[in-house]
Amino acid sequence: MTSSTDATVATSETGDPLLLTPGPLTTSRTVKAAMVHDWGSRDANFVEINRSALARLAEIANGAGDWVTVPMQGSGTFAVEAMLTSFVPADGTALVLINGAYGKRAKRILEIARRETLVYETAEDTPPDLGEVEAILARTPSITHVFAVHCETTTGILNPIAQLGALAAKYGKSYLVDSMSAFGALPLDVRSMHIDAVAASSNKCIEGVPGLGFVICRREALERTKGNATTLVLDLHDQCANLEKTSQYRFTPPTHVIVAFHQALEEFVAEGGVAGRGARYRNNCRILIEGMRALGFRPLLPDALQAPIIVTFHMPTDPRFVFQRFYDSLKQRGFVIYPGKLTVAESFRIGCIGRIGEPELRAALAAIRAVLDEMGVTGLSAQTA
Amino acid sequence: MTSSTDATVATSETGDPLLLTPGPLTTSRTVKAAMVHDWGSRDANFVEINRSALARLAEIANGAGDWVTVPMQGSGTFAVEAMLTSFVPADGTALVLINGAYGKRAKRILEIARRETLVYETAEDTPPDLGEVEAILARTPSITHVFAVHCETTTGILNPIAQLGALAAKYGKSYLVDSMSAFGALPLDVRSMHIDAVAASSNKCIEGVPGLGFVICRREALERTKGNATTLVLDLHDQCANLEKTSQYRFTPPTHVIVAFHQALEEFVAEGGVAGRGARYRNNCRILIEGMRALGFRPLLPDALQAPIIVTFHMPTDPRFVFQRFYDSLKQRGFVIYPGKLTVAESFRIGCIGRIGEPELRAALAAIRAVLDEMGVTGLSAQTA
Repeated sequence: MTSSTDATVATSETGDPLLLTPGPLTTSRTVKAAMVHDWGSRDANFVEINRSALARLAEIANGAGDWVTVPMQGSGTFAVEAMLTSFVPADGTALVLINGAYGKRAKRILEIARRETLVYETAEDTPPDLGEVEAILARTPSITHVFAVHCETTTGILNPIAQLGALAAKYGKSYLVDSMSAFGALPLDVRSMHIDAVAASSNKCIEGVPGLGFVICRREALERTKGNATTLVLDLHDQCANLEKTSQYRFTPPTHVIVAFHQALEEFVAEGGVAGRGARYRNNCRILIEGMRALGFRPLLPDALQAPIIVTFHMPTDPRFVFQRFYDSLKQRGFVIYPGKLTVAESFRIGCIGRIGEPELRAALAAIRAVLDEMGVTGLSAQTA
Repeated sequence: MTSSTDATVATSETGDPLLLTPGPLTTSRTVKAAMVHDWGSRDANFVEINRSALARLAEIANGAGDWVTVPMQGSGTFAVEAMLTSFVPADGTALVLINGAYGKRAKRILEIARRETLVYETAEDTPPDLGEVEAILARTPSITHVFAVHCETTTGILNPIAQLGALAAKYGKSYLVDSMSAFGALPLDVRSMHIDAVAASSNKCIEGVPGLGFVICRREALERTKGNATTLVLDLHDQCANLEKTSQYRFTPPTHVIVAFHQALEEFVAEGGVAGRGARYRNNCRILIEGMRALGFRPLLPDALQAPIIVTFHMPTDPRFVFQRFYDSLKQRGFVIYPGKLTVAESFRIGCIGRIGEPELRAALAAIRAVLDEMGVTGLSAQTA
C-alpha cells in the first residue's frame, strides 16, 4: 500500500465533501452561517444589504457610476436569458460567438425569443479568430449585438473578450458578455472593454451560494431596452426601474441567498478582490495541472488558453479506468468532481474555484493517485499522450 | 405606563424580528441550519433530497402518480409565469379571474406573452360570482383555460377554487391555479378540483426560505405543452423532461434553498400536514383578528371570506396614527409587518403564517397596544367602524 492510499478523508469547514466543480462550489463557513437568520424582503435592513452588494458588483467591473447592476432571481442562465431578451430588440440581429455549450445555449435562447442570430462557431479548444470576426462585422451591417462567453465552462477556455469588445466598438455594435464562471477571478473592465451588459451569478468566483444571477448594464444602453423583453420576470428594464424607484424587488428575492452573497463579497474584498482571488485560483490551477500531468493525465487545452477556473482532462483509454468508479471513490475520499462531460472530446473536468487552496488541491491529487492505484491503472502518460 | 408598554422585545429562535408578513416569513432554526452545508448540484446526495421534496409536494395536493411537480428557480411569480406561458398555447384564450394584484399580474404575464385573455374582475373584497363565471364559459367557446388565485394575498381573500374547478371541468376547460400563499395551509385536491396545474413557492405555508417556485402539473396536460413556452428557462415541459431523464436540473438549482425546503417539508409532515398547519394558522388568525378588534381595528373582509394567511385592516383615520411610526415602533419591538399596501382601500396587512403561534401573536398584540399608547391613539373603534 502506498502512502497516498492512506490519505484521510477530506472535508470542508462544515464537514462536507470538497466541491471541485464549476459551481455550486465550496463556500466558507461564514458565508453559509449568514443564512441562519430571516429577513423581511421589504424591510430596511435587507434593502440596505441588497443595495450594498449590487453596488459592489458594478465596482468590481470598474462600472461604478455609469453601469448599474440588475439582479435576477434564479440562476446564471436566468440572467443570461434576461440580458439577451432585454437587450436584443425584436428587430435586432445578434452575432453569437460559440465554442462550447454556453455559447450554444445563448443561441437557443435567442432563437426561442425569435431574435435573428448569426453564428460564428469554432472548435471547443479554439478561440474565435479575430480577423474572421472583423470580416463578419465588416460585411454584415445588420448585426446590432455581439455576444461572447468570457470563460467557456465547457472546457475552461478563455476567450479574448477585450479584443472582441474593441471590434464591437469599432463597428458600433452593442457588446454582451457571459462572464458566469470568470467574474471576480479574471480581470473585467466594462469601460475599456466596451461592454453594454455582462451576466454572472452568485455561486461562482464570488463564492456565494446559488440562487441569484445579475447583469451589470451600461445605464444608457439599459434605458433603451424598455419594451424589448418577451417576459415579465426576465425584463431587466422593469426590474431595474422598480428597484431604483422603490428599493424593492418586483417579486420575492431569495433573501438568504442574497445575504450570503453580501457576506461572500465582504470576504472577496478582504482577499484582495480580483487580484487576490485570481492569484489563489491561478495557483490552484497550476498545482492541479502539474499534479495531474505527473500522474499521466493530459489537459485538453494548451496552457495559453486555459482559464484558472476549471480544467478538462482527456479520459484515459486504459480499460481499468472506469470513470464512475473514479468519481465514486474520489467522493468517498471527500472530493466531488464534475460527474459528466459537456465536451465533444472524451474527457472529465476538475474545478479549481471555491473556498479551496493549495492544501485541498494537494489532498485531491493524493486521493486521485490512491484511486488510480486502487483501480490498478498505471502508465497513463503513454495512453493519453 | 400600561403593562403592555413593558413588553420585552420579541425575537425568533435565531434572534431575529418576527416576520408577520405574507412571506418571506419566520422559519424554524432547523430549516435555516440545513443550509450550513454545500452540495454538488449534480451529486447523488442532492439529487435524492430534491427528488424526495418534489414527490412530497404532489402528495400534499393528492396528485401522486398522475401529477408531477416541476420546480422553477426564482420565486413564486417565476413559477406562475412558467405555468401560464407553458400551458396556454399561442392560439389559446385564458379566462383570468381577478380580485387583486396577483390576478392582475397573471393577466400582464399573458399579455406580454401575447396570449389572448378574457378578464372577469370583481372588487378586492368580492369573490367571483359563480353564475357569472358559468355564463361567460357558456357563451365563450374560444376559452381554453381558466386561471384563478386560491388566496389573493392582496387582501387575504379566499376564492372558491373547488367550485371554479367544477365549472372548468363542466365546460371542458383546462384549469390553472395560483395557490402561492395557500398551499400547505388550505385543502387543495388537484383530482377533485380538476386542476391541470397549480403554482406555489418554497417560502409560504411550507415555511421554507425563498428562491424556489414549483408547479404541480397533471402529466397528460403537461405532455401536451411541448413547444408552447416562449422562453428557455421558464419552459416547464423542458424542465420536467430533463429532470426525469437525468435527475438533474437544466440550470443550476438553488441547492441550499432546496435542502432547507426539504427540511421544511419534514417539519410540515411532523405537524400533521395541511390539517395540522392549517389549524395552527386558523388559531393564529382568530387570535389576531379578535385582538385587533378589541383594540378598535376593523378587518377589511368579513370572516367568511378571510383566509387564515394574512389579514388586511382598515387604516385608522386618527391623525395621530402615522403608519410609518407604527411600522418602525413595532419593528423596534421585534415585529416586522408588511410595510405597504396593495389594496385599493387605505389599509395595512399583518400575516399570521410562518413559524409563529399563540405566544408570538399575543406578544404582537401587546406590542401593537403599546405602540398605540405611545402614539396617543385612542378610541379607534369609533373611527374605523
